[in-house]
Amino acid sequence: MGRATDRRGVLRIDLDAVTAGRGSVRRPDTLAVEEPLEIRVGAAGPGRRRPLAVTMRTPGDDLDLAIGFLLTEGLIRSTDDVLTAQLCAGAETPNTYNVVDVVLAPGVPEPTTDPSRNFYTTSSCGVCGKASIDAVRTRSLFPVAADPLSVPATLLAELPDRLRAAQRGFDRTGGLHAAGLFTPDGELVVLREDVGRHNAVDKVIGWAVRERRLPLAGHLLLVSGRASFELTQKAWMAGLPLLAAVSAPSTLAAELADEAGMTLVGFLRGRTMNVYTGPHRITVEQPA
Amino acid sequence: MGRATDRRGVLRIDLDAVTAGRGSVRRPDTLAVEEPLEIRVGAAGPGRRRPLAVTMRTPGDDLDLAIGFLLTEGLIRSTDDVLTAQLCAGAETPNTYNVVDVVLAPGVPEPTTDPSRNFYTTSSCGVCGKASIDAVRTRSLFPVAADPLSVPATLLAELPDRLRAAQRGFDRTGGLHAAGLFTPDGELVVLREDVGRHNAVDKVIGWAVRERRLPLAGHLLLVSGRASFELTQKAWMAGLPLLAAVSAPSTLAAELADEAGMTLVGFLRGRTMNVYTGPHRITVEQPA
Repeated sequence: MGRATDRRGVLRIDLDAVTAGRGSVRRPDTLAVEEPLEIRVGAAGPGRRRPLAVTMRTPGDDLDLAIGFLLTEGLIRSTDDVLTAQLCAGAETPNTYNVVDVVLAPGVPEPTTDPSRNFYTTSSCGVCGKASIDAVRTRSLFPVAADPLSVPATLLAELPDRLRAAQRGFDRTGGLHAAGLFTPDGELVVLREDVGRHNAVDKVIGWAVRERRLPLAGHLLLVSGRASFELTQKAWMAGLPLLAAVSAPSTLAAELADEAGMTLVGFLRGRTMNVYTGPHRITVEQPA
Repeated sequence: MGRATDRRGVLRIDLDAVTAGRGSVRRPDTLAVEEPLEIRVGAAGPGRRRPLAVTMRTPGDDLDLAIGFLLTEGLIRSTDDVLTAQLCAGAETPNTYNVVDVVLAPGVPEPTTDPSRNFYTTSSCGVCGKASIDAVRTRSLFPVAADPLSVPATLLAELPDRLRAAQRGFDRTGGLHAAGLFTPDGELVVLREDVGRHNAVDKVIGWAVRERRLPLAGHLLLVSGRASFELTQKAWMAGLPLLAAVSAPSTLAAELADEAGMTLVGFLRGRTMNVYTGPHRITVEQPA
């Protein structure tokens, strides 16, 4: 574990240095580690665990990633639905630690198929964004529309710097997405980094599931990149009333947030932000 | 079609304007469209097309996306392996145009399962980056290691601006990834934008497949974001000897590029770049 970054030789070319008569330099560079993680799930008892999904992720917090994935896909509802979750004790030498084995509690139905496919596909020709939103609503565990969270815009504007300051991996690699869970006072509760932004969010939510903190009512989630449908879905599944992104949201992210009654903030940069849905949760103090 | 962007009302908060006594404004904002696309594949004849994958993508060039996906996953080798590819003529009103139906040419084996899962999973506990690389090597169609492509670093440094200048959607939304295919002279052959960077690459490659331009020997691909394992895999499958990214690569992307004999350039910004693998293809002119 602890393999979040790795070093590799790189040829650094600086054309201004070349013009000044200095050559290019070979030097070590720190990269974000990317490795596959296979999530296997099975019922309690002697039955086999079946591969459910493989995600390319940055190693670390893998049990949280698996549990967060299962919850945000609607396959479990709390940590009580999981009997055990452990890194696969394989016979290989060395063990690659890239398989998480999840045993469901008695009575929890086994997933019948790949959730990401089951989620959106229909037998007809009518797959569409609306159907995707309906599928999330059907699986959603917590109502968030009535969440009374209220956050001053001035506070929200400070959070990207707090997230960035707490990111250990980004400064070294420039290649890690971050997701941070904050209280309404702007306190960072937990931060996770990953080459995949959906993995960073699953790691945060999986941590909260194991800590029995769901629903994450009264909290907000900040992500370092764009806000996609998938990230918005995960936030709703965890009961978060507010998702903020440093970069742009997509149409379907905004539509899903609207449907959920969530607040969706995008382009949270410097002293400005765009509020796409649920603006009543953002307070703006007018000067006296 | 042509639904790459859409407009939506947004509350724009500018704290400096608030301090100056001006209120927040409600105004329209342009968002990148995100919609699911289901790719269905079947053998020639009256048999059923089965759902193979669903990807959240920006509508447009959907046939290229489907064909690029099939090629980069190793399921087809050229456009001759495809009998027909068309948007599903569903009975729904209105047709959502979110399903592509691919009929394989006679003799081309049907995929047996979800390619992304089949790709990495093993029956043992030993899923790892090395196995992922082996899986790509087994499926790779074209040797790229001996490709004599040579590109001046000064030319390479100009390409991000050329890509950005040609991006229609990004300026309006800030939310679209781009992939551009360039000649060694720096001429932009084709550009595609999408909320998913893998989709942008599949659209470029799918276009090249249909135009019978594979292998893309002597060309280079520039992507607007990071270089992941998945993007490097797609570049190799299309026979590209050089992949350049504006942002960071991952460890597994660098390892796969090394294995393929590809040149991988990261952090291509301003007058600087990092060459992670295959530096012999980048020429640096020393001043006289």
